[in-house]
Amino acid sequence: MVKNKVGSFSADGKVFKIEDMFPKRVLMNYLWSESVVCKCDQFGCCESFAGVGAYRRSLDRGERLVYIKDKESGKVFAANRNFERAPFDEFYTEVGLGTHRVISEYEGIRTEFGICVPKEGFAELFAVKIKNTKNVARSLSFCFFLRPCADLSGHASYGFGNYDGEIGGLYYPHEGFAIDTEYKHLYFAASEKADSFDVNNDTFIGYDSLAYPAGMKADKLISQGSTFQDFYCGALRYELQLSAGEEKTYYFAVGTEKTRRDCIASARKFASSAFFENSVKEQAEINGRTTDVFQAHTPDEYLDIQTNVWLKRQLSLGKTWGRVYGKGFRDVMQDITAFVSFDPALAKTRILYALKHQYISGNPIRMYEPDFTYPYMDGAAWIPATMLSYLKETADFAVLDKKIPYLDDAAEETVFRHIERGLEFLLSSRGERNLILWGGGDWNDSMNNAGMLGKGESVWLSIATYKAVGEWIEILGGARREERVAEWNEKRGDLRAAILKHGYENSYFIYGFNDYGEKAGSADCEEGKIYLNPQTWAVLADILPKEELSAIMDKVEEKLSCDFGYTQCAPSYTHGTDRFGRSTYFQAGLVENGSVYIHGVAFKIVADCLLGRAEHAYDTLKRLSVYNPKNPDSGMEPYAVSNMYIGPENRYRAGDAPMSWITGSAGWLYRAVSEYLLGVRADFNGLRIVPCLPKDWSGVTVSRKFRNAQYAIEYVKSNENALVVDGERIEGDLIEYREGKHNVVCYYKS
Amino acid sequence: MVKNKVGSFSADGKVFKIEDMFPKRVLMNYLWSESVVCKCDQFGCCESFAGVGAYRRSLDRGERLVYIKDKESGKVFAANRNFERAPFDEFYTEVGLGTHRVISEYEGIRTEFGICVPKEGFAELFAVKIKNTKNVARSLSFCFFLRPCADLSGHASYGFGNYDGEIGGLYYPHEGFAIDTEYKHLYFAASEKADSFDVNNDTFIGYDSLAYPAGMKADKLISQGSTFQDFYCGALRYELQLSAGEEKTYYFAVGTEKTRRDCIASARKFASSAFFENSVKEQAEINGRTTDVFQAHTPDEYLDIQTNVWLKRQLSLGKTWGRVYGKGFRDVMQDITAFVSFDPALAKTRILYALKHQYISGNPIRMYEPDFTYPYMDGAAWIPATMLSYLKETADFAVLDKKIPYLDDAAEETVFRHIERGLEFLLSSRGERNLILWGGGDWNDSMNNAGMLGKGESVWLSIATYKAVGEWIEILGGARREERVAEWNEKRGDLRAAILKHGYENSYFIYGFNDYGEKAGSADCEEGKIYLNPQTWAVLADILPKEELSAIMDKVEEKLSCDFGYTQCAPSYTHGTDRFGRSTYFQAGLVENGSVYIHGVAFKIVADCLLGRAEHAYDTLKRLSVYNPKNPDSGMEPYAVSNMYIGPENRYRAGDAPMSWITGSAGWLYRAVSEYLLGVRADFNGLRIVPCLPKDWSGVTVSRKFRNAQYAIEYVKSNENALVVDGERIEGDLIEYREGKHNVVCYYKS
Repeated sequence: MVKNKVGSFSADGKVFKIEDMFPKRVLMNYLWSESVVCKCDQFGCCESFAGVGAYRRSLDRGERLVYIKDKESGKVFAANRNFERAPFDEFYTEVGLGTHRVISEYEGIRTEFGICVPKEGFAELFAVKIKNTKNVARSLSFCFFLRPCADLSGHASYGFGNYDGEIGGLYYPHEGFAIDTEYKHLYFAASEKADSFDVNNDTFIGYDSLAYPAGMKADKLISQGSTFQDFYCGALRYELQLSAGEEKTYYFAVGTEKTRRDCIASARKFASSAFFENSVKEQAEINGRTTDVFQAHTPDEYLDIQTNVWLKRQLSLGKTWGRVYGKGFRDVMQDITAFVSFDPALAKTRILYALKHQYISGNPIRMYEPDFTYPYMDGAAWIPATMLSYLKETADFAVLDKKIPYLDDAAEETVFRHIERGLEFLLSSRGERNLILWGGGDWNDSMNNAGMLGKGESVWLSIATYKAVGEWIEILGGARREERVAEWNEKRGDLRAAILKHGYENSYFIYGFNDYGEKAGSADCEEGKIYLNPQTWAVLADILPKEELSAIMDKVEEKLSCDFGYTQCAPSYTHGTDRFGRSTYFQAGLVENGSVYIHGVAFKIVADCLLGRAEHAYDTLKRLSVYNPKNPDSGMEPYAVSNMYIGPENRYRAGDAPMSWITGSAGWLYRAVSEYLLGVRADFNGLRIVPCLPKDWSGVTVSRKFRNAQYAIEYVKSNENALVVDGERIEGDLIEYREGKHNVVCYYKS
Repeated sequence: MVKNKVGSFSADGKVFKIEDMFPKRVLMNYLWSESVVCKCDQFGCCESFAGVGAYRRSLDRGERLVYIKDKESGKVFAANRNFERAPFDEFYTEVGLGTHRVISEYEGIRTEFGICVPKEGFAELFAVKIKNTKNVARSLSFCFFLRPCADLSGHASYGFGNYDGEIGGLYYPHEGFAIDTEYKHLYFAASEKADSFDVNNDTFIGYDSLAYPAGMKADKLISQGSTFQDFYCGALRYELQLSAGEEKTYYFAVGTEKTRRDCIASARKFASSAFFENSVKEQAEINGRTTDVFQAHTPDEYLDIQTNVWLKRQLSLGKTWGRVYGKGFRDVMQDITAFVSFDPALAKTRILYALKHQYISGNPIRMYEPDFTYPYMDGAAWIPATMLSYLKETADFAVLDKKIPYLDDAAEETVFRHIERGLEFLLSSRGERNLILWGGGDWNDSMNNAGMLGKGESVWLSIATYKAVGEWIEILGGARREERVAEWNEKRGDLRAAILKHGYENSYFIYGFNDYGEKAGSADCEEGKIYLNPQTWAVLADILPKEELSAIMDKVEEKLSCDFGYTQCAPSYTHGTDRFGRSTYFQAGLVENGSVYIHGVAFKIVADCLLGRAEHAYDTLKRLSVYNPKNPDSGMEPYAVSNMYIGPENRYRAGDAPMSWITGSAGWLYRAVSEYLLGVRADFNGLRIVPCLPKDWSGVTVSRKFRNAQYAIEYVKSNENALVVDGERIEGDLIEYREGKHNVVCYYKS
């Protein structure tokens, strides 16, 4: 069982049990559907919203608390929070796939607080089970408290909160002038009628604290509505007699609707035992589909859990919600590339939807839902790779002829033409060195002022474009539409020449030239002398012979390595300058300025694998692991990947891992392990097996669903590389696609 | 001594002692200079900002806590907050004029927490005096905690917090790309070097609460800097040995500067004993100037304290900071009208500055610093009254020839022409009934959609314009510039005819007609059948004979009266409609929708006085009083006036008084008492004494500074109205201006 001081995974890896309920930083879980996102820390507290089009309609925020009062002793405690650090007999949380459960036992009261999001509808669901584990009858009072988001406009005069008998709970409308959403009505409903209630923080908490709020000191809650509050609370209280061993479960729902009538209907539907229990089952079923489609078994149990379960789970958040705060075009593209293997139908839907967010110029918008229009330049460079992954997974070449409009032009054109326009945009956006213009930024969106005057050129983006044109040529080959291939090849060669002439110096690639002709990522620079991404992408783009690429990666090992990964650049900037932008102002070791930016390190693992540097690849994965003994207290959830580890140059927080879940790292780490380390890659005509396994691994197996086939792959160390499919040795590394179940033995040299 | 359960005033009224430290709602105090605003609740907690141009640069926010730990017992308490409601021997707050002191004594530790704002500089100051009142030596640990606002951009990567020896405290820079202000550096400095410190909520508070934070459980604070935090804290801790009866005082400052160098200089200057004590003296001196200039002594001690001290104090907040969130043009105009009597020089400065915010069209911007451009129509109608008050106070007619630019036109024109353009704008903005167009709203800024299509007409604004033209004509007379008076009189008569023809029905004035020709404030309406302001302003504008106006005010008594004042309209709207706007969506009894909107009630008191209805006027003042026995628990600070009492139609909170300090009510109540009840009104040539005193008053005196004269006025009930000045009876009610000290006896019929 994989375990650290924070907690441990279940044998199947599908549940993480948080055993240290007061770790260095809160541990976050995300629950979501297509219409709701609900965040939960280890106590089940945090915030939620309903996505109503591009609008995020907050549901609740902050604490969700299960108060128990022993009416005999008068003692009050928050069963899922233990503010006072009382000596609970049990206190742990089960982070599941789409479920969250906080369990505690204290003075003979066992409480289970469950949270789930329904498959459909603008609501979140709660279940509170209370059990008397003593052998005498108990007289208790139970109160469920949360903080509904009832203010949509800043005009507190529009709203009120009160008990509503038809809703069976609390009701908070906010009807006003020019409100941004139709979803103006909020309910907090219960499966049972409360004895008393409160909606007002001033009476429920008062001058006291949530550890022991005023409302719990009294025998009953005040049971009065209120109005003209910026922030309401919701508290529903129950008297509860439990005989020895008896238990009782209450169900709650918080949701939003367009009218009070709809609130009544939804409240009755959602705040019920049957609905909650069914939603838990549905979540298991939905997540089961993704966990089953690719299963690896390696000597690294944690890597298996990540690959088989949690990276997919995290990636699925991106698949529906982008980065939650919005849908970055390039984020969406990358996530699709990663999840296409386990959800090709959705991948297609998402590609077609994303491409509607491309301007007729060929450049996509930076982010949509909500829109963010800063003039980043890299959007189009991500499209061919995504399309290539989709086509290799599905061979659905017909998608290229689907017609869709542009963001600023309703006239529909084919997907084929969208991709072409994207590449044409990039290839025509050139500076005096014939490199691609940097504009408002590229992958590094914090280099946001290097090219705003229209002169700066990005070497990384030039490499990315070189790679993208290569992928496009591969698509044209697969689709048998090679009319313009020579032309594309010529353009690609022309770009390559410029990259090598201006971007390649001292045996590595610089990042670029700003509007003033100053370099970033060059040995000539005082700070930021070398960047990780231009090196790894040179490998991904296969822009030089293997030996030279290997030498570049040696430079990465030399210049960017640290105990817990590889930094995005080195040395970090300590003097901010508007000549490059935001990134240079970041404190040393943070984000693009010298952190171990995990997204970038995932590119590095792929690059290692492409060059056959298996030990480097796996060593990098182990450095990134939350179980890395050289960085034992990063604070990261074992079941989630963070955006970064704060870099070694940071004075204060080197090694810390803030910002989990919302990152493109999950998708790329998933691909790094499944497609590059284990080397199972879809191709137009079949599955390619190109492993790059570390020396001391053995007994590796993979189960992979591919179209209507299922492959059981066994990896066997050998003196030569060879594939045996259903008992027959085949030439090369491609298993031609055939329906049905297949056994594969992959012999590999190591 | 004026006293209720919340607390009591000092004999001179200049200090309010909060004795109930846990009242229904927090009691707010404002401390400010021309550059800083610092809010304090009864515990001294809240938020502060530095005004850097139109930008409000937050300094600190939330709690400011004085923790004491008795090292022998290990007991920890927050001396200015008493989270746990421990049995403090003393616990009270002194709200002073520009100062705030929280005093407590618990287990032999007496603590005084003082707050002040320096006259100049972007800082706020704190003093903490700790005294051992026991007769044995004590070993204590003291920690001062607050929440500095160190994030200016939402990019946590830009900042850090750490101890800085040269600053002598904590330092939080936030240098980044495209930050809105140059004031990127924040310090939290102390007069003495701390033993230990913290900047990080995760370590100082941790999973505990502010009642007993993790940091106070340990022997010392962690003394580590941090970075990448959305919110920092600041905690400075000291070991403290106090012999029997010994005391020690620590001084702190929180401030912002453009550079670290400037932070060092300011920190050393501000965080000191001498500077703090001197600032307290300066505040007393600054406020003394305003309290001394007009002094009333009536049988109503609370009315005296309001008039002589606290209404001026509150009005002075408006004088510098408008409504704090911004400077509404009409708010500024009204405040000037009220404070011109005690600060004519500043009044002139503010008038000239405000008039720069008028468009060349004649209409002023709705609000500046920050700008708010919604097309309200009433701005220009407030200018003549303000100018008239200024001219009557000073006889400085030369101001009319000062040249200033417009908001959208740099060409300078005279103040005279600015005022004319304003009136011309109003008089040319007419609808089909020849009334003034309603546009985006008038005084009632929540009727924000009644005239957006350009057709709706406001009767109230028409009356206000009629009044304004009358004031302009009065100015022209005073200034001997009567060339166009006949023309203005004709225009005014024309407007009056339209008002009486379309706006006057059922013996009262309606509010207006929306874009669809539908009425507001008419007996024909289903809701909002009568509004207060059109009636009171009909009196202020003297638009009808006295008897008819008195009949209108009888209607007000009949339709709008309630136990704690008069509602803005009745009955309140319960069905929101975009045909009128925001106001109709407000919950019944809130703000413009049927609250006792105190600003409007102040107009009503003036109207009563103008009609000689002294008993009504004074009765209304008593209804508004926080000591009104029929509304004993409104929550209002006895030393401040709120924006409203929630109206009687509200289901939940009728009588509550939220939103204190930031309201135009203070200025109008001050004028109602000083100029209309006591009847001391400046005029071009002297002081007019036109009292309207309630029957059972006697022994009333007023001291009034006017230009270079000082008047001691004694009011004596009599059979006739008569004025005796320096022993000589004069004709009429005007005391002609002469320098020097004068004794006045005002005989009045009652």
